[in-house]
Amino acid sequence: MAKRAYPLPKVYGLLEPGPVLLLTTSHDGHANVMTLSWHTMMEFEPPLVGCVVSGRSFSFEALQATRQCVLNIPGVELKAAVVGCGNSSGRRVDKFKTFGLTTMPAELVEAPLIADCYANLECRVIDARLVNRYNFFVLEVIKAWIDPTCKDPRTLHHRGRGVFMVAGDSIKLPSKMR
Amino acid sequence: MAKRAYPLPKVYGLLEPGPVLLLTTSHDGHANVMTLSWHTMMEFEPPLVGCVVSGRSFSFEALQATRQCVLNIPGVELKAAVVGCGNSSGRRVDKFKTFGLTTMPAELVEAPLIADCYANLECRVIDARLVNRYNFFVLEVIKAWIDPTCKDPRTLHHRGRGVFMVAGDSIKLPSKMR
Repeated sequence: MAKRAYPLPKVYGLLEPGPVLLLTTSHDGHANVMTLSWHTMMEFEPPLVGCVVSGRSFSFEALQATRQCVLNIPGVELKAAVVGCGNSSGRRVDKFKTFGLTTMPAELVEAPLIADCYANLECRVIDARLVNRYNFFVLEVIKAWIDPTCKDPRTLHHRGRGVFMVAGDSIKLPSKMR
Repeated sequence: MAKRAYPLPKVYGLLEPGPVLLLTTSHDGHANVMTLSWHTMMEFEPPLVGCVVSGRSFSFEALQATRQCVLNIPGVELKAAVVGCGNSSGRRVDKFKTFGLTTMPAELVEAPLIADCYANLECRVIDARLVNRYNFFVLEVIKAWIDPTCKDPRTLHHRGRGVFMVAGDSIKLPSKMR
């Protein structure tokens, strides 16, 4: 899937709707991927994203050590990988191989892009003040990629215990807000 | 709309999918409401929610002063109110009256519940460490309400500049995750 660079000031529109993400890391030569639903935009420009990563996870160790990751946005066609990555640990499994995910090198970070995802956000950790108390990292998106052919992504939105809402149609309302 | 108390351990399932919220406050006898898309779950029990509230807003002042609010979850039928509340200020307008929203008293906080919303989460601020830098508040949900007749809420999910994705159908996948 050929990706184009995506303007950083438009990144918020990708994350605001609350899609499930696949977070990739790379640490000591080991790439890994986890499923992530607990994230929020925190600033438009530069785009800042807050996220909670479980302190017991292999990804948490990598994120703390390397202070880098990629947020990959899957569509519904990756549903098996989304659930699989959330139910296994990179300590025991090569999740990319197990769930058939194809990686590509990122431009500015060591963590890989997931080629199968329609958008990829290269990030670095800029604030770890709330990590001890809440496992909460503040990320800055430093490079963004998008599949230009994907106009109406069918993202997944977790409602709990394996129930996912699949993104429905979009409507345009008269708004002056960004 | 008759509401039932909703178990706090299940609250995460309401917010994880990333719905647009209506945040209500009450300060010096003035109730107010704003539209909010920048929020994330931070803990299951007690349910903690992080959110970014613009520092220029009337709601920010109220939230800082009272350390209380309600997160109300609207469905697509409230789309005009969602956009209207996001495009006006409580300094100049009684938004409840202007956009036809009905309030009800909350049980544990001064801020009102919006009766028209299918779920309402009474919250208090428990951590303001990131307010100065990011306008980021950590809230604890202390009481939750739900409309028991609403089984498949058609929530709104902001994609930017007035474009909203309307929640589509849900699918159930085999997952051991909460």
